[in-house]
Amino acid sequence: RLLIHPSPIKVYDQENFQGKCLEFTSACQNIMECSVDNIRSLKVECGAWAGYEHSSFCGQQFVLERGEYPYWESWSGSNAYHIERMMSFRPICSAFVLLCTQNHKESKMVLFERENFLGHQWEINDDYPSLQAMGWGNNEIGSMQVESGSWVCYQFPGYRGYQYILECDRHGGEYKHYREWGSHAQSFQVQSLRRIQH
Amino acid sequence: RLLIHPSPIKVYDQENFQGKCLEFTSACQNIMECSVDNIRSLKVECGAWAGYEHSSFCGQQFVLERGEYPYWESWSGSNAYHIERMMSFRPICSAFVLLCTQNHKESKMVLFERENFLGHQWEINDDYPSLQAMGWGNNEIGSMQVESGSWVCYQFPGYRGYQYILECDRHGGEYKHYREWGSHAQSFQVQSLRRIQH
Repeated sequence: RLLIHPSPIKVYDQENFQGKCLEFTSACQNIMECSVDNIRSLKVECGAWAGYEHSSFCGQQFVLERGEYPYWESWSGSNAYHIERMMSFRPICSAFVLLCTQNHKESKMVLFERENFLGHQWEINDDYPSLQAMGWGNNEIGSMQVESGSWVCYQFPGYRGYQYILECDRHGGEYKHYREWGSHAQSFQVQSLRRIQH
Repeated sequence: RLLIHPSPIKVYDQENFQGKCLEFTSACQNIMECSVDNIRSLKVECGAWAGYEHSSFCGQQFVLERGEYPYWESWSGSNAYHIERMMSFRPICSAFVLLCTQNHKESKMVLFERENFLGHQWEINDDYPSLQAMGWGNNEIGSMQVESGSWVCYQFPGYRGYQYILECDRHGGEYKHYREWGSHAQSFQVQSLRRIQH
């Protein structure tokens, strides 16, 4: 089922959907090339997207599912540093083009206690607002293998703190050290984790 | 299955689990009565808890599932105002005393388009990081009826923004206007919603 939405993401250069509005159907590597200095609000009309602090998909990551985001805090969540910037974004798993080909109920990944896919392992296919409540031994994950689907991990329980977006079709789904989770990752700390909704 | 953990919640008056530590097995209505001026970090060892900005369970609400919360942003999420205070807390559904009597898979609630349980309705029993992605028509919910379990709603998609804790055994599970969601609620805006993990 091929379904292309006319404008799956709309970004604005002012808060509350004010100012200059740009509509995108695919990735934007640097919003400044569109003569916009920063994104200050946005609406996702279709699919799931990854937003980034810097151009070229670098820096802090923000998972963006369908809905309205009127200001920076509405997508950033609780983070250790508040640099109010979002300079690039891209669709996750081409979700907006091929809706329904990937059922998020079929998402699967394996958590490993230690880096390089070593130590105790646990296969998951559900959302976990608290990994420790479900029996994971500590507040860290050493490495992760994404078998299918796209996922977002968080530093703190209840989907708070830094966001790390993990996908089966990037890095071959292999994230063997926190350095591979994103340039903003500073430790192995992960306390909640869920599938991304397309 | 009756299971009482020796100290289901530990709170500290300094960040990073430093300073004076107090252990609780039940609700605390005012942390200042324990000679502590504020809670600056905490560990949930068992069950799920609700934290509050003010004494007597008033003000902003914070859902606290098992795990470690080293500073205010780690439990507050992204909120419109940053008053770094948590003065009272209580267990949710006595979760830490009667573990396993309430399976969160059996949680159920009904969303209504308009206040006072009017308009289009939708029964749910799953987590929704984006209600609009699943077909809800707009970025608001008029009223909610919790049939079973305990839930947390959020202002923005992806479990961000203000948190509203809703339980079947409080208010008879009826939340017929945003004023009943909590004293910090200022609008009907709800864009994501999930079950609380015990």
